Amino acid sequence: MSPAAPAGRPSDASHLAPGFPVVAVVGGGQLARMMHAPAIALGVGLRVLAASVQDSAAQVVRDLRIGQHDDLAALRDVATGAAVLTFDHEHVPLEHLVELARSGVVVHPGPAALKHAQDKITMRRALSAAAIPCPRWAVVEQVSELLDFADEVGWPVVVKTSRGGYDGRGVWVLDDSAAAASLLGSVELAPGAAWLAEERVEFAQELSAQVARSAHGQAVAYPVVRTVQTDGICTEVVAPAPGLDGDTAVRAQQIALEIAGTLAVVGMLAVELFLTTDGRLLVNELAMRPHNSGHWTIEGAVTSQFENHVRAVLDLPLGAPTAVAPYAVMVNVLGGDHEDMYPAYRHCLARDPGLHVHMYGKDVRPGRKLGHVTVVGDNLDDLLVRAHHAADYLSGAIDE
Amino acid sequence: MSPAAPAGRPSDASHLAPGFPVVAVVGGGQLARMMHAPAIALGVGLRVLAASVQDSAAQVVRDLRIGQHDDLAALRDVATGAAVLTFDHEHVPLEHLVELARSGVVVHPGPAALKHAQDKITMRRALSAAAIPCPRWAVVEQVSELLDFADEVGWPVVVKTSRGGYDGRGVWVLDDSAAAASLLGSVELAPGAAWLAEERVEFAQELSAQVARSAHGQAVAYPVVRTVQTDGICTEVVAPAPGLDGDTAVRAQQIALEIAGTLAVVGMLAVELFLTTDGRLLVNELAMRPHNSGHWTIEGAVTSQFENHVRAVLDLPLGAPTAVAPYAVMVNVLGGDHEDMYPAYRHCLARDPGLHVHMYGKDVRPGRKLGHVTVVGDNLDDLLVRAHHAADYLSGAIDE
Repeated sequence: MSPAAPAGRPSDASHLAPGFPVVAVVGGGQLARMMHAPAIALGVGLRVLAASVQDSAAQVVRDLRIGQHDDLAALRDVATGAAVLTFDHEHVPLEHLVELARSGVVVHPGPAALKHAQDKITMRRALSAAAIPCPRWAVVEQVSELLDFADEVGWPVVVKTSRGGYDGRGVWVLDDSAAAASLLGSVELAPGAAWLAEERVEFAQELSAQVARSAHGQAVAYPVVRTVQTDGICTEVVAPAPGLDGDTAVRAQQIALEIAGTLAVVGMLAVELFLTTDGRLLVNELAMRPHNSGHWTIEGAVTSQFENHVRAVLDLPLGAPTAVAPYAVMVNVLGGDHEDMYPAYRHCLARDPGLHVHMYGKDVRPGRKLGHVTVVGDNLDDLLVRAHHAADYLSGAIDE
Repeated sequence: MSPAAPAGRPSDASHLAPGFPVVAVVGGGQLARMMHAPAIALGVGLRVLAASVQDSAAQVVRDLRIGQHDDLAALRDVATGAAVLTFDHEHVPLEHLVELARSGVVVHPGPAALKHAQDKITMRRALSAAAIPCPRWAVVEQVSELLDFADEVGWPVVVKTSRGGYDGRGVWVLDDSAAAASLLGSVELAPGAAWLAEERVEFAQELSAQVARSAHGQAVAYPVVRTVQTDGICTEVVAPAPGLDGDTAVRAQQIALEIAGTLAVVGMLAVELFLTTDGRLLVNELAMRPHNSGHWTIEGAVTSQFENHVRAVLDLPLGAPTAVAPYAVMVNVLGGDHEDMYPAYRHCLARDPGLHVHMYGKDVRPGRKLGHVTVVGDNLDDLLVRAHHAADYLSGAIDE
């Protein structure tokens, strides 16, 4: 008997069956964590670069490196011997990825694609150049430019930092010129960031269209889903988007496929869309990785977004994105009153034997994404009630 | 940047979210490996005691101990701080489990149950005492006793070693007295083993009835499946067993639930049954862990056998065992001609986007279980063709 050997570098990878590759993932969050189950099934290795052994993915993988996502040496180290380097998040400095690619590391999505997910202005320019429908937008440097833009599109106006925002951070909705002056006068932009102004779209629904695209260009489109954002955080997803007409759904899938091809995305791409009250589709945001709007695919689709991300970056043939049931509902579990969620969790499992609970191994902090629940079936109203009840009970918002 | 810290003992477990427990598994085979995905989703820890860092499960878990399953100190070590000790196989010496349980370790299934899976004579005695239908059987010490038994039930006679056999090893079908004399005269029994003689049953189908039972006695029954054994190895499973009448299916489930209750099994129980040509159900073998006949549940049931095993041993409420589609077909991938299976694997994924491939990370050896494939849908003939084609192509038995 002895404790396990330290997770030495080359030895870990060599334990796979002959010929099977390693995928290196930068970032130890829940997205990397949820890639591990399909990697295990596929027989490929998943190596994770995490900031801490306590990170969500770090808890569950054998082949773990501890380091920072902005440290080129750490990135080189995790990529060595791996077939491909991919990501749990968009925050790796672009110049590092360019340097890694130059030195022969296979990076998917590559820097030429990923820059569009890192910088919203770069994204808007590329989509507008490709005639892909977006809300009206403008880069603004001064308050006067923002007021000019507001004159054109009308108040309220959405203002975003071009970089670094997520889950509602870095986005403001401004009602008037005073708010505009206040924001631009008080918030200091991060290095390299700029202000992006966008029209405030009157939407009937927010949608997400996800596609997987492999290195040699095979692509599959998932059913288009309806997302609900609360304070900028995706809190509910219904697959497929209820009541969405077939033509609009196909149009959303075509937009996502076109973006994936135009930007040469390899891996999963999520295109968040507004369906306007007058029936237009406008691209809101892009993510080039598995996305919260696709967690339902773990139980709700033949091949999950996590499996297809792994397949795509390895240039393996993609799996079917088809739904396995009429509806799937995913609701996020946010941190609330329970520091120890286990008793609530037992209760939820007992109450609903069909509930799929995914916990991310995180400490509880109010509002933090700690997990999600998914239910699959044919009665949408029933699924919504079940999923929200479980999520609310887990977070402590309700106690019966 | 630094390499990951060695897998130190208490630190690993403490990285889970507050309140969430660790399950310790003895054995690093594919069953432990396949427990990891549901453990990740459930947010519980999976700690594995494996003989080698190259073992199937050892490749994929963070919380790994290297040691032998028959070393009491190694068992104590892996159980320390875990909520429960459970198993990938049946080979842990019973006296060690008794000792661990005596010292306060929660062991599921416990030694009083597990002894029936370790010793076929103990199993036959307990089932016969509970009036559960079995083939006629006898413990035989000498050739003359075996001949007396054959006089009673007729040739051929099945002879088994009471302990240590699996996947067809330790089982012989004897045609006559000369074969009987030859076997008992040439094969030396392992310490503690004895000869068990059984009638050779004329069966229409081999079935498997799986149930999960939790510590406080909640139990769920999976759909009864048809298994096909080739040279004693389970090679094909169809869920549900095609053409099985409803009454017989319910009877098989009742037998499995009764055995789980009578023997106080906690965790998954697989009851392998003969459906005789005259419509009787007779218990063939028991396994008290996830079982090859339940691999289809990963994609084919609401809750997989691996998830319900983890839930049951933690005394969490069980998940629904319901099938999600009319049929699921699972076929094992056995080692064949390909030493590097990756090219064949790519081909299979490309040919069938609905195929679910599970590879166990093992080196190729002829006849070794290296993985399995599952397909789910409503056209059984189509599913059988797809699953067998993929398994045959992967093993190298066919090349088109």
